[in-house]
Amino acid sequence: MVYIGTAEASPNMPFVKYWGKRNEALILPMNSNISATFDSSLATRTTVFFSESLKADELWINGKQFPPESLDKAIPQLNIIRELAGIQMFAKIYSISKVPVAAGLSSSSAGLCALALASASALGLKLPAEELSIICRRGSGSSCRSIYGGFVEWVRGDKTDGSDSYGVQIADDKHWPELRMLAVSIEETEKKVKSRAGMKQTVLTSTLYQKRLQDIGNTLDSVRNAIRNKNFQSLAELTMKESNNMHAVCMDTWPPILYLNDNSRTVIQSIHDFNEGGLRAAYTFDAGPNPYIITEEKNLKSVLELLKKMSFIKHIFISKIGGNPRVLEEHLLNEKGKPV
Amino acid sequence: MVYIGTAEASPNMPFVKYWGKRNEALILPMNSNISATFDSSLATRTTVFFSESLKADELWINGKQFPPESLDKAIPQLNIIRELAGIQMFAKIYSISKVPVAAGLSSSSAGLCALALASASALGLKLPAEELSIICRRGSGSSCRSIYGGFVEWVRGDKTDGSDSYGVQIADDKHWPELRMLAVSIEETEKKVKSRAGMKQTVLTSTLYQKRLQDIGNTLDSVRNAIRNKNFQSLAELTMKESNNMHAVCMDTWPPILYLNDNSRTVIQSIHDFNEGGLRAAYTFDAGPNPYIITEEKNLKSVLELLKKMSFIKHIFISKIGGNPRVLEEHLLNEKGKPV
Repeated sequence: MVYIGTAEASPNMPFVKYWGKRNEALILPMNSNISATFDSSLATRTTVFFSESLKADELWINGKQFPPESLDKAIPQLNIIRELAGIQMFAKIYSISKVPVAAGLSSSSAGLCALALASASALGLKLPAEELSIICRRGSGSSCRSIYGGFVEWVRGDKTDGSDSYGVQIADDKHWPELRMLAVSIEETEKKVKSRAGMKQTVLTSTLYQKRLQDIGNTLDSVRNAIRNKNFQSLAELTMKESNNMHAVCMDTWPPILYLNDNSRTVIQSIHDFNEGGLRAAYTFDAGPNPYIITEEKNLKSVLELLKKMSFIKHIFISKIGGNPRVLEEHLLNEKGKPV
Repeated sequence: MVYIGTAEASPNMPFVKYWGKRNEALILPMNSNISATFDSSLATRTTVFFSESLKADELWINGKQFPPESLDKAIPQLNIIRELAGIQMFAKIYSISKVPVAAGLSSSSAGLCALALASASALGLKLPAEELSIICRRGSGSSCRSIYGGFVEWVRGDKTDGSDSYGVQIADDKHWPELRMLAVSIEETEKKVKSRAGMKQTVLTSTLYQKRLQDIGNTLDSVRNAIRNKNFQSLAELTMKESNNMHAVCMDTWPPILYLNDNSRTVIQSIHDFNEGGLRAAYTFDAGPNPYIITEEKNLKSVLELLKKMSFIKHIFISKIGGNPRVLEEHLLNEKGKPV
């Protein structure tokens, strides 16, 4: 008896950051946070194959098997799914990413969302979106926002068991068709301080972090309003300030975490120069030096011209606001667990 | 009738930063701050020459005349001195710096302290140290700490006229003879955002800055204790955290101010690696990418070996804790205002 399922999900780009957990084991955030989901051109497609013939969980990305420690985020998800379905089989995860894994995109959010959907599909579990989002969250926090397309808020929740902490959609992918999100790759080496370790250290040591948390309710209100009103100027300013605020508390962490490099600084300075006379683009940086940039369709050409001058840029992925992730009938593996 | 006076003063290195004014015109700081004064190997020697033959104030540094706008900081000082002395003559300022001006050392603190002392000496003004420190402050804030050697606190003060905001000595240059301060030059271009403009923008725009101010009283208490007890481990940790905190609020400023570059990050990372197992060195950065490093004599050799591996370092100036600035009888100009 084998079970097989396939799904496709996209990473997401944050306007308000997830930085700091209130519960490490359950992956519960200190603050609600908001992102938009990339379109399917940046998606990850994952087939999961449950079989009694497997001796352990396996992870294959783009045709290459990954070592067991790479399953750290997937196993908590798989265990929840296995328990819900009442099975004990191991799983083979076979994932194809449309963008290079090394490009610095937050591919784990896409991969773990696709895995949760594919697993539920494989085992015939009919789960509400909230529950699927929670399963995503248990793998990788920000992944719970990829359960929807459009603009998504990961609601912090108050309960200690995390049952009220999941992604909710603020607006769908049709809401703001003029918006463009660019994932810009300037460094393809692995980050030195992974976000999981970094945010934990910030919570433990940064005094400024407490002020960040005090103020973030206002930021969330303003970002929701900017999205609902499609107010680009407002969203752009809020997004840049929020990114800078997160990197400020990283620098205030002990020992300090400095994710931005000279090329990141060049991007920041160039965007501010570009915005003289009115905000036409905004940057945001996650736990690394690679920027995401938002702009509107009418300014996309100018933004690309600006970026083309920066010879250190390796890739630029251009995306619209994406739709919901999808369960697919075409699998990447056959019934014997071999690639098709 | 001509008046001539000469003095020598050294720059200082902050443990608790001066970042933000409560009064722009009077140069009153938002928070008390603490530094140690470099020794005379890094000093600036200044002769000031008041004469009715001069048609305007003039500034000469290392034999080269500087444009009128370079006198922005000196003129407020000169005007106070002229008023106290009841004269209206212009001044020729002739300054020799022992370290290259471009090396990124805060030479204005030394230069403006030497100018205040030289001017008072030239005009025969006998002023108490507090008043001299206030005159320094009106030129360049941090200059008011160079009025003493040893460890100096610039007391914030409460009065609106600034009459209680000046440097006071915490401990003199004999207190901690084992301490070494290194001024490390990695970039010799002028900083893009000068500290005066940068700190103003931080006060106006950074939300995290309010938290910095709330916490700084505790930092000041701890730094004073670490100095009094000659507790290097404590002073090192406090100094690094305080530097990171200042650069965090700079990043949280709008638009963001990023003074640290990739070489600064390398220094930070190397010092943290070097300190595994016990703090033997600490970094601090002012409004630019160049680090100051503190260590103790017993670890100086290891620190220099560490720094020698960094090929981007242009100069390293090594200093003990310096003594008080001095009024000198040998002038750099003769009675006709010509170099001797």
